[in-house]
Amino acid sequence: METLLRRCQIRSQIVRECIAEFLGLYILIGSGAAAQVVTSRGTHGNYLTIQLGSALGAVFGIFVARGVSGAHLNPVYSLSLCVLGRHPWKKLPLYSLSHLVGAFLGAATVYLQYYDAIQTFSGGELLVAGPNATAGIFCSYPADHLSFWGGLVDQVVATALFLLCCVALEDQRNGPLPDGLHPVLVGALILTMGVSMGSNCGFPLNPARDLGPRLFTFVAGWGEEVFKAGGGWWWVPIVAPFVGGLLGTVTYELLIEAHHQTTPQSPQQEQEAVELEEFVQLEKFQQFLKPETFYWVITVISLMPVLEAGEGASLAIL
Amino acid sequence: METLLRRCQIRSQIVRECIAEFLGLYILIGSGAAAQVVTSRGTHGNYLTIQLGSALGAVFGIFVARGVSGAHLNPVYSLSLCVLGRHPWKKLPLYSLSHLVGAFLGAATVYLQYYDAIQTFSGGELLVAGPNATAGIFCSYPADHLSFWGGLVDQVVATALFLLCCVALEDQRNGPLPDGLHPVLVGALILTMGVSMGSNCGFPLNPARDLGPRLFTFVAGWGEEVFKAGGGWWWVPIVAPFVGGLLGTVTYELLIEAHHQTTPQSPQQEQEAVELEEFVQLEKFQQFLKPETFYWVITVISLMPVLEAGEGASLAIL
Amino acid sequence: METLLRRCQIRSQIVRECIAEFLGLYILIGSGAAAQVVTSRGTHGNYLTIQLGSALGAVFGIFVARGVSGAHLNPVYSLSLCVLGRHPWKKLPLYSLSHLVGAFLGAATVYLQYYDAIQTFSGGELLVAGPNATAGIFCSYPADHLSFWGGLVDQVVATALFLLCCVALEDQRNGPLPDGLHPVLVGALILTMGVSMGSNCGFPLNPARDLGPRLFTFVAGWGEEVFKAGGGWWWVPIVAPFVGGLLGTVTYELLIEAHHQTTPQSPQQEQEAVELEEFVQLEKFQQFLKPETFYWVITVISLMPVLEAGEGASLAIL
Amino acid sequence: METLLRRCQIRSQIVRECIAEFLGLYILIGSGAAAQVVTSRGTHGNYLTIQLGSALGAVFGIFVARGVSGAHLNPVYSLSLCVLGRHPWKKLPLYSLSHLVGAFLGAATVYLQYYDAIQTFSGGELLVAGPNATAGIFCSYPADHLSFWGGLVDQVVATALFLLCCVALEDQRNGPLPDGLHPVLVGALILTMGVSMGSNCGFPLNPARDLGPRLFTFVAGWGEEVFKAGGGWWWVPIVAPFVGGLLGTVTYELLIEAHHQTTPQSPQQEQEAVELEEFVQLEKFQQFLKPETFYWVITVISLMPVLEAGEGASLAIL
Repeated sequence: METLLRRCQIRSQIVRECIAEFLGLYILIGSGAAAQVVTSRGTHGNYLTIQLGSALGAVFGIFVARGVSGAHLNPVYSLSLCVLGRHPWKKLPLYSLSHLVGAFLGAATVYLQYYDAIQTFSGGELLVAGPNATAGIFCSYPADHLSFWGGLVDQVVATALFLLCCVALEDQRNGPLPDGLHPVLVGALILTMGVSMGSNCGFPLNPARDLGPRLFTFVAGWGEEVFKAGGGWWWVPIVAPFVGGLLGTVTYELLIEAHHQTTPQSPQQEQEAVELEEFVQLEKFQQFLKPETFYWVITVISLMPVLEAGEGASLAIL
Repeated sequence: METLLRRCQIRSQIVRECIAEFLGLYILIGSGAAAQVVTSRGTHGNYLTIQLGSALGAVFGIFVARGVSGAHLNPVYSLSLCVLGRHPWKKLPLYSLSHLVGAFLGAATVYLQYYDAIQTFSGGELLVAGPNATAGIFCSYPADHLSFWGGLVDQVVATALFLLCCVALEDQRNGPLPDGLHPVLVGALILTMGVSMGSNCGFPLNPARDLGPRLFTFVAGWGEEVFKAGGGWWWVPIVAPFVGGLLGTVTYELLIEAHHQTTPQSPQQEQEAVELEEFVQLEKFQQFLKPETFYWVITVISLMPVLEAGEGASLAIL
Repeated sequence: METLLRRCQIRSQIVRECIAEFLGLYILIGSGAAAQVVTSRGTHGNYLTIQLGSALGAVFGIFVARGVSGAHLNPVYSLSLCVLGRHPWKKLPLYSLSHLVGAFLGAATVYLQYYDAIQTFSGGELLVAGPNATAGIFCSYPADHLSFWGGLVDQVVATALFLLCCVALEDQRNGPLPDGLHPVLVGALILTMGVSMGSNCGFPLNPARDLGPRLFTFVAGWGEEVFKAGGGWWWVPIVAPFVGGLLGTVTYELLIEAHHQTTPQSPQQEQEAVELEEFVQLEKFQQFLKPETFYWVITVISLMPVLEAGEGASLAIL
Repeated sequence: METLLRRCQIRSQIVRECIAEFLGLYILIGSGAAAQVVTSRGTHGNYLTIQLGSALGAVFGIFVARGVSGAHLNPVYSLSLCVLGRHPWKKLPLYSLSHLVGAFLGAATVYLQYYDAIQTFSGGELLVAGPNATAGIFCSYPADHLSFWGGLVDQVVATALFLLCCVALEDQRNGPLPDGLHPVLVGALILTMGVSMGSNCGFPLNPARDLGPRLFTFVAGWGEEVFKAGGGWWWVPIVAPFVGGLLGTVTYELLIEAHHQTTPQSPQQEQEAVELEEFVQLEKFQQFLKPETFYWVITVISLMPVLEAGEGASLAIL
């Protein structure tokens, strides 16, 4: 067995990483619990079990891929790391494609596993809306009350908070995490999103996780309606998460990570480094950075709600 | 990006800490799950998911702020640390203000994200009481059955237990905790409060977490009613938690922490230190502290329920 | 503050331990979530939140007491440790009394906190049975379907499994546990009991946790009925857990712990020790222990279900 | 006590391991929460508490057995380890038998504990189907909507994902896990399965866990119907998990583990080893493995959904 496996060894780093990302997202989707709750009409689970399924699926998706590719499992997260200079830009499209393929096949597996249940539930008709709709098992659709701008804001805000916390969990200078706890916390974060930001449009947060299964449902018999529903909703969970993700990442960087003074070192070294740095940069910082930066950061903070209030107002007007 | 961030670096420790506390509380509130459950009329969650949202929001608020400011996220906790001499008193007002601003903006974000849902749910009328009330999404209001004294006692008891456990989790001499588990346990503690002490008045436990969103609702259209409701309830979750927090902190200190004999050292050193100390303080302690202290502690313990019984009795009379 | 606390220091080990055990059980009870669910008639929680409250209350009770007394929080666990020679017998009555007092005061606190709610729910009449019964908030009563023998067996089996797992978690030779995870796992164990063995009689598992609150309800106005209800049920959750606890402890010791070969050492030492031991005890063991012990253990295993089947049969006859 | 236990010491490694596996599965079953929910007609739990009971039961089953036998607790997992060359084949039947006996006695204990409740619920008649059926407490039966092929696919897919994640959690080269977290994560994995793949046929995943209790119900009064129900369903959860388990194990090995380059070493050594290996195997790999293996892996990935689609199609035809 060992030798057999050895023969199949792929030595290309990028191929290995793409396979890991693919498999991680495949598991993430394959563990989606919505099919069970929808087709059992709520007798085998409720809203909480759906969220638990999403969160735990992500946990195990991360455990499967973490050692090989770092388990991004979300193009938005890959983009954030690229922007921060912690991931090469050229890997971004390959990672995103792996995510998309993984999500597509994951959805196919869910459909396969719940084939009988979906047929029985829907009476053989695959619908996107109505009491017997089954498309919501696979990807997000907006609630009836949600306006277009409301959906956009929802996804921007939710992904911003999501990425802000993801980046914080990765920030070793903010505090160490024991190995093995990180995937669990990301799962807990997804659960948090699910229980607090899921009723507007099902918290996609992840363009690949939304588009992949949507493409599958398009192919598998739900037809064009999956792109037309909700007034052409499909592109919102693809575009908004990137905007929100960048907003969240930059917010964390500006408000927290930029101010860590040095990389962690032995206390003595750290002390010296701080002193040296202070001596060198004293002039520069003291005369120009301290007040301005401070006000700038405050402005960003203040701007955020102003922006929000503005959008809220425009919502009120529309 | 690195250099850009470097330019924005704030070197003032207290500003960094206030920003971290602000962001932590912003996340804590932003993850509130009540909006989802209320506006979906229970189809997207239940009482448990609200508590999970509160608890997990706090977990990630702590993860965001822990490395910079210690993640108090609650003026009551800051006060307790000040009383115990572990936090400078002069930082207390700045921390509290950061908490208040974070909570205010967090509530604004929730309102923004659920703008459509709240409008649809309430028919456009922002009410504090009644079947279409939405003010309860943001801050605490007492249940109909709750008397004024009952509410006061509820908050004192709940915050006392909360702070007692918080201080115990921080007490390294009571037993070590792996890095990264502490925020999760505080979240679990909030969940415990939520499932066991939430039906009287929604377990605010945190003056900033209650007042910030209340101010927001006052500004955003719910009006004066947010301060008048429940017979002027608004000041109880501001005052009572401080009383309860001090009570809980002092109880833990008196019953547990005061009696740890030395700071943790190697067993040999510890042994020696104990012996030395015993020799020096033998006279003082043996002739006056042992019996008196013992009785005093017992008296405190006994007093607690007597006080409680007294209040219970006065409740019965009123 | 430090010096103030120092003056209150108690140097008597046993008094410190009893206070810690008292406070641990006080928190365990104080976090009971049943009052919330019962008095809100299920709007603020459900069966799961009650179990979560019990489990998490125990977690924090353990965190408060673990460094001082080991956080037994259950006379049955103290007894098991005494039987295994890991705890002095003379401390058993003091520990048990501390548990009882802690449980009594914990129940008093719950009553105080839910005074208004219980009065409103029950219409001012404190009843043990019927739709407005409130005694079940504090201690266990058997379900209508439960026979006397059924209740006895339920408690013996449940406490046996509970203690078996508790002893297993403590067994360092079976596998290490990170500091801080142990209390969480005991909480998870209590949750397991709650979701799988709670519908017959509410899984007391703990004589002090049941008798203390029962005494409180007796004093506080529920009257003699708390002892008469369920055909004099009150003594079953006091006696049966001791029987079950010993059964579970002995089962684990016989089936697992007795067979660990040496205490953990460096691999080399361990190897040598094993060889030495094997050489010395070869004769003794090979000629008499191997087959007999084996059969004896098998007999114990077989006996367990036979006993069970016997009781099952007698139940069928009665 | 110590000496008493010492006399009972079994020195045979395989007997010790079998006893540990037996006890682990006994606890896993004994904590089954279905009896409680079924016999209380949903007042003492819901679908989620059943899944929590299963998951947590497994957690403590693993904690009891992990130090002695590695806590397989599932013949499918034992088989996977044998195939991977990490467990001796000759132990497989003994382990499987231990699992079966443990599951049988675990079911007997549940019946004993819920004897009164089952009698009351079912009116004394032990039925496999209908509103008062109680056989579903012990082992799996297919839902009405499930076809024979659907059930087979469900179990193959579910066990494949389950084993894939199990093997991933064990893979130290994918990332380290703190001691004590592994059993908890396996429990979380079982919960994931329960909330996302439980409505078709109750996710048995484990031949011993399904057959043992089924044999018990056969003996205990449910009669032949337990084997006849669901069109002779009983053998599906015995055969399908082995197929799925192998599929999942091989998938993980091919897609992830085969490509780890070396066992973890110090960075320098690793670097050297990689270089050396690359030099030696350069020719072999470069001319023949790189493209072919890559395509082969892709083919396996593509085949999986094709296979699935094929089965889906055949399902559609039938």
